[in-house]
Amino acid sequence: MKAREETPVAKPDQAPKTAITPTRSADYAEWYQQVVRAADLAENSPVRGCMVIKPWGYAIWENIQRELDRMFKATGHKNAYFPLFIPKSFLEKEAEHVEGFAKECAVVTHHRLVAGKDGGLVPDPEAKLEEELVVRPTSETIIGASFASWVQSYRDLPLLINQWANVVRWELRTRLFLRTAEFLWQEGHTAHASADEAVAETMQMLSVYATFAEEFMAMPVLRGKKTDGERFPGAVDTFCIEAMMQDRKALQAGTSHFLGQNFAKASGITFQTKDEKREHAWTTSWGVSTRLVGGLIMTHADDDGLVLPPRLAPAHAVLLPVYRGDDTREKVDAYIDALAKDLRAQRLFGRDVEVEIDRRDIRGGDKMWEWVKKGVPLRIEVGPRDVEGGVAMVARRDRGTKEKASMTRADLVGGIVGILEDMQKGLYAKARKERDDNARPIDTRPEFDAFFTAKNDKEIHGGFALSHWCGDAKCEASVKEALKVTIRCIPLGGAEGAPWESKLRDDGPCIVCGKSAKGRVVFAKAY
Amino acid sequence: MKAREETPVAKPDQAPKTAITPTRSADYAEWYQQVVRAADLAENSPVRGCMVIKPWGYAIWENIQRELDRMFKATGHKNAYFPLFIPKSFLEKEAEHVEGFAKECAVVTHHRLVAGKDGGLVPDPEAKLEEELVVRPTSETIIGASFASWVQSYRDLPLLINQWANVVRWELRTRLFLRTAEFLWQEGHTAHASADEAVAETMQMLSVYATFAEEFMAMPVLRGKKTDGERFPGAVDTFCIEAMMQDRKALQAGTSHFLGQNFAKASGITFQTKDEKREHAWTTSWGVSTRLVGGLIMTHADDDGLVLPPRLAPAHAVLLPVYRGDDTREKVDAYIDALAKDLRAQRLFGRDVEVEIDRRDIRGGDKMWEWVKKGVPLRIEVGPRDVEGGVAMVARRDRGTKEKASMTRADLVGGIVGILEDMQKGLYAKARKERDDNARPIDTRPEFDAFFTAKNDKEIHGGFALSHWCGDAKCEASVKEALKVTIRCIPLGGAEGAPWESKLRDDGPCIVCGKSAKGRVVFAKAY
Repeated sequence: MKAREETPVAKPDQAPKTAITPTRSADYAEWYQQVVRAADLAENSPVRGCMVIKPWGYAIWENIQRELDRMFKATGHKNAYFPLFIPKSFLEKEAEHVEGFAKECAVVTHHRLVAGKDGGLVPDPEAKLEEELVVRPTSETIIGASFASWVQSYRDLPLLINQWANVVRWELRTRLFLRTAEFLWQEGHTAHASADEAVAETMQMLSVYATFAEEFMAMPVLRGKKTDGERFPGAVDTFCIEAMMQDRKALQAGTSHFLGQNFAKASGITFQTKDEKREHAWTTSWGVSTRLVGGLIMTHADDDGLVLPPRLAPAHAVLLPVYRGDDTREKVDAYIDALAKDLRAQRLFGRDVEVEIDRRDIRGGDKMWEWVKKGVPLRIEVGPRDVEGGVAMVARRDRGTKEKASMTRADLVGGIVGILEDMQKGLYAKARKERDDNARPIDTRPEFDAFFTAKNDKEIHGGFALSHWCGDAKCEASVKEALKVTIRCIPLGGAEGAPWESKLRDDGPCIVCGKSAKGRVVFAKAY
Repeated sequence: MKAREETPVAKPDQAPKTAITPTRSADYAEWYQQVVRAADLAENSPVRGCMVIKPWGYAIWENIQRELDRMFKATGHKNAYFPLFIPKSFLEKEAEHVEGFAKECAVVTHHRLVAGKDGGLVPDPEAKLEEELVVRPTSETIIGASFASWVQSYRDLPLLINQWANVVRWELRTRLFLRTAEFLWQEGHTAHASADEAVAETMQMLSVYATFAEEFMAMPVLRGKKTDGERFPGAVDTFCIEAMMQDRKALQAGTSHFLGQNFAKASGITFQTKDEKREHAWTTSWGVSTRLVGGLIMTHADDDGLVLPPRLAPAHAVLLPVYRGDDTREKVDAYIDALAKDLRAQRLFGRDVEVEIDRRDIRGGDKMWEWVKKGVPLRIEVGPRDVEGGVAMVARRDRGTKEKASMTRADLVGGIVGILEDMQKGLYAKARKERDDNARPIDTRPEFDAFFTAKNDKEIHGGFALSHWCGDAKCEASVKEALKVTIRCIPLGGAEGAPWESKLRDDGPCIVCGKSAKGRVVFAKAY
């Protein structure tokens, strides 16, 4: 590890203290927007509430998709595709059960635009739809209609379907990836011959999500069950994975619903049993969305920008040639091409090591900072002297931006997989410690209130309060009202080894009413 | 090759003459629908014009996506995602240039449904959008708005973007995969610093499409240029790949547009040149859609159902256990599992050989026919005697349904890749001969008329007439009016080796007006 003058680092007096302004502690929400912008992940579009996902952001989503898709298929699911539009009457069935139903959604009323009197375009009054269509906010009802015709006998079960799709929920206050009117997601929908099988499926997919979050996103999650108040409408039980962001708020990162026979009854999904009876199927649904990209950012990014866990990074390393005049250019380029080829021949987590070469003709310092902000795990600089010495200067994104090490070509090629695996593990360990340190068993109401209202740091919100709750919806509501704190889940797993793990199962008085309660739940502010 | 009694073939007197009714020659359009249905590819949905793509159909689309995506990335393109909705004002800009503009599209006018007086749901009058939104029929305008802000300097060019998305074009008469209101597609959009580069990109993507069609779909295509009348509105030049279906109608299977500076001017995409001038960029767009699945069906399927080229088949082989009482079940299952493992370890066209095992407890004959209709390339039956003999009975989908061969396990494992490669080649060769045989240089108008009106076979429509055309839009229009025949393209390639290839470049009198013309164009009825 030695400093080097020829490397493209901004000089100390030019360098900002951090690449992202403001920092997390100064203004967390704005820091988030600036990280998204600096890493070139996404931007707002001219369509209110809809985002444009830019190539670097979309490549992360593609990696998320590829790995989840593999996991879904390995557990027997098949992909299919259902219509974008839901007839209004399908939602009316739902509305029958929901007092004061109002759905924020995109409503299609016409099927043609024509020239109006003032020269602009207007919906053609001749082309008014007989029945309005809604752009799917989720596909339970339309998929239910298909399932009703696909399922006839117990032989057709289980039916294990997943859909990758865009959905729309009209949102006024949006935030890139975390809350947008249109977002991308997957929705699993399955039908089973028994409650037990459907419950097992629900838990299996919860476990797939938890594994994905921890092993690929390096994002520790608590697995748990939602309270009645936080449950998906119509579900018997909703399970979730909950992560802690760096501002210590909770992010619900995925949900898995056991729907009982409720949706099967609404959609008429019935099957003939082995003993020739007619029964309603038992169904589940489960989903994760582009929100995961927001979770990834808020788990690992720092005040210099994005930090990507190698398993989901669009590129594992960027090669940065440092030219010293035109006479060395050819030599450096040849060395870099050969190095890239050797690195790409390495296999990491079941895919080839992916390497970018950035030959753009811009200042070396600017270029370096761009890749820091994009969160690429390794930056590898090669100048003429490195070519002569058969080495390269390697900087890890999980270390200080000025820290770099000279490595021989052989060590780098032979060692890159190990370095990346180490980074993946390190990012998880760091996030895990952060979460464990900021989750705390709390037994008294004053301490509970102080936990969520103390302002040590303007943008940091307490953490996870592990407290007792009697099970009464009124106690839950009163905390939400008073502190904007909700019960994220009744924990089922994901705390193994945490110093407070054993406390999760102890008994004690409800943090609100004092009635005795079995085990603790997780209270937090949430996205 | 020897007959065997224990195999699950329907007995001759039970077997229908063909698995699909009607046959192609009896009623081609209905045959198509029945193939889609029998192969379980897709079905109509409760939403007018929108289809449900079922798992087997979607898996074919996933294979198409994966291979095209690889080819796009190998040519330097990056994926991104843009909003589903287009503000009405974006289309108004377009409408300024189009006399009598009317757009068949889904128009979103409200963002909320609420309970109405009669108990149903109605669009909330309070939630009327200030500006209507249209569900994207294509994304040129919305992507143009992004490009305008992304491109500043020549250093930002070329900008090479692709999007995988759903689009909606309101259609009244729909046909699964071929014409649906909602469909899935990819749309490439690129911006360049010069006309030459943009033209080169346009031609490159045409060539990617042609390669994909021929090498993966085993579907021969003519590459060509559209006439002015058939061009994409706003494009300078539209290029296409055109395939011949088994009813001898043409299917436009992909298009690549050179847009000149037209769209850059409409969207304000400008860049600073090296010598610090401001210029409009040169753009292209190109796309293929789920229509390709329709093309795949109509190129290869026969009167027994779907026939899948191995490179796009969701499964290359299905293993069908033939149990003879419970005492042999275990032995057969173990043999099949081991065989499946060995087959899956083989690599074909860069992916693992994919094998399904169908253990469903239904009649062997029904099961066999199901897989015939689904078009799986190889059906492999294993009964107790096969286990003892260390063999399996192998049937190829490109041969007669009763034709099967006993192969030793070692021959099958070692030979499966060769068999599948042979099938891939064979399907292409067969389709190529069919096309070449039914494309014909035609020099006189009576022959031309007879070619398109003769009814040898109710559902078969002439083919490709290779005739001269003077270039006048009136001549083109008169043929369309008289015979519903259009100029599919001015051919540029894809005829190499055809008996009529050299004729494409000869001179002769226009088939309509008799004026002299250079080279021939392709006339056909089209989907």
